[in-house]
Amino acid sequence: MTIREDEIIASLATFFREHPRVSLGPGDDAALIVEIPGREIAISIDSSYEDVHFTLDTLTLREIGHRALAGALSDLAAVGAEPLTFLVDIQLPRRLASRAPEIYEGMEELMNAFCVSPCGGNLSRGDKLGLSVVVVGEVTRGKAISRGGVQPGDLLVITGDIGRVRGWLLAEELGLSRSYEPWLRRLREKFARPWPALRQIQRLAMDVNLHAAIDISDGLGVDSWRLALASEVELVIDPEQLPIDDSVRMIAERAKRPPWEIALESGEEYEVLFAISPEDEPKLSRLNFPATVVGRAREGRADSRIIVNGTEKSLSSLGYDHFAG
Amino acid sequence: MTIREDEIIASLATFFREHPRVSLGPGDDAALIVEIPGREIAISIDSSYEDVHFTLDTLTLREIGHRALAGALSDLAAVGAEPLTFLVDIQLPRRLASRAPEIYEGMEELMNAFCVSPCGGNLSRGDKLGLSVVVVGEVTRGKAISRGGVQPGDLLVITGDIGRVRGWLLAEELGLSRSYEPWLRRLREKFARPWPALRQIQRLAMDVNLHAAIDISDGLGVDSWRLALASEVELVIDPEQLPIDDSVRMIAERAKRPPWEIALESGEEYEVLFAISPEDEPKLSRLNFPATVVGRAREGRADSRIIVNGTEKSLSSLGYDHFAG
Repeated sequence: MTIREDEIIASLATFFREHPRVSLGPGDDAALIVEIPGREIAISIDSSYEDVHFTLDTLTLREIGHRALAGALSDLAAVGAEPLTFLVDIQLPRRLASRAPEIYEGMEELMNAFCVSPCGGNLSRGDKLGLSVVVVGEVTRGKAISRGGVQPGDLLVITGDIGRVRGWLLAEELGLSRSYEPWLRRLREKFARPWPALRQIQRLAMDVNLHAAIDISDGLGVDSWRLALASEVELVIDPEQLPIDDSVRMIAERAKRPPWEIALESGEEYEVLFAISPEDEPKLSRLNFPATVVGRAREGRADSRIIVNGTEKSLSSLGYDHFAG
Repeated sequence: MTIREDEIIASLATFFREHPRVSLGPGDDAALIVEIPGREIAISIDSSYEDVHFTLDTLTLREIGHRALAGALSDLAAVGAEPLTFLVDIQLPRRLASRAPEIYEGMEELMNAFCVSPCGGNLSRGDKLGLSVVVVGEVTRGKAISRGGVQPGDLLVITGDIGRVRGWLLAEELGLSRSYEPWLRRLREKFARPWPALRQIQRLAMDVNLHAAIDISDGLGVDSWRLALASEVELVIDPEQLPIDDSVRMIAERAKRPPWEIALESGEEYEVLFAISPEDEPKLSRLNFPATVVGRAREGRADSRIIVNGTEKSLSSLGYDHFAG
């Protein structure tokens, strides 16, 4: 049985909803978004590919869809934008041709939570599954947060907790992933169903001046280094302060590795690292979500460093690199 | 020798230029585009993958880059939008890691011709080369052209000529492609360096009311059928009127197929099919680029048909389908 491209696209059309700002949606060559004066459109693309970012035996198609949209929305969180709509480009193997709607089904919870729906996309055949999600958001002109604003003396703060994604991958490497222990499920939860820090950053920005922010999609290690480069300051991360879940400590023990190392190299967490003035620190404790001070910025070379047992080292290489190694 | 992801990204940064409407460009989690009242943002994504849309022994990396951007810009042409900026998502095999700049080099001619430059992107490792280009354009509010406006009685007009892309693929199948005959070069030219019909559509829209338009990226056959569906009219294409280059007639003879069939199934031509009132036809002849009447719309079922030797047949299946067959 073969399925036609137009039939697959029609099966996805049920996920497309009208949006007051989208004046021409899917089914045309381009989508149209009505502009508003005094605002800026924020746009970003994020991709995930079978056997690079995931395998089909560790994640369901729904989870793959969820993660792809979560990752793209996290880029909007990092610049302080509010989501408007998104486009999905799918590279679909023939063997999955009739199952494409499951990818969109996996996106529905995030679509409902953040009031977004797709406005367009693209479909091609591929040997392996690939997903690119383009998110379109909006921010008041001049209010976007960039990577370039960290000031010496600033505190570095991170949303949520870190390490569980790398922890889950370690559990798989160690052959523990088929077990049903609760701490393994805690690891898998962050890997399979990450939640972008959109609300947290919007809430924070109401009370606090966020000097700079970055989505730590490649891990706090390498991404804090990228933040240091963009802001031309030196960052010092304190391994003792990292927000690490007990489940990560469990896997660290089994892997005979320090938990802070797992936390620093854990990518696709979709948490946001941001910089604030020290006088704003007391406001963090009044929030009803985790926001943890993990380090500090100082004058120096553009680098991110960690001090372990009195020895400093650069974090520039601690994270996922698609081409290294 | 390995190359780091950040090094590859840095090697691409030379292609990024400042744009008055792009307030935050590459190097951040999202790009920002300043909004203007009374306008609409047009956005589209178009992808091409090794061994699906091209192979590395038939196209250079520069040509692959050129085609990817041309295809995406063509979507903006079809809705009558003017390009602002674009984002490129690259899936890069390790074997090509140091050659990524060639892809952008291939885009430079189009970047210069249409005053666009990239504002962001994404880079992942992949087994095969893949390119997704997201284009962002702009149109005066309410002035965009959709697929849904064809009226019974309208003339169907196409920019440029059609058939050379499919003609080139036939030349490859027949083993003729290594020859240097001029007509083969004419075929390859359209395949390797298509040019989006942006200027033509903008010029046309100054004089003529374009009722509807579609980018014929999957071929005039299936895409005219999609136009018919969206507008709920019946379209009749006249095979005698199709703008077919002599080079296509040469390959048609060798392949023992009618030239019109090759023209109708030829995809990735990036020409635009549009509908106008018959009274606007005389204005077409005053243009200094080809715009050919190829058919007519009439009341009837939503379908696109062709009459050959007195027999009518539907064009719904004549074109490239990623999943059929």
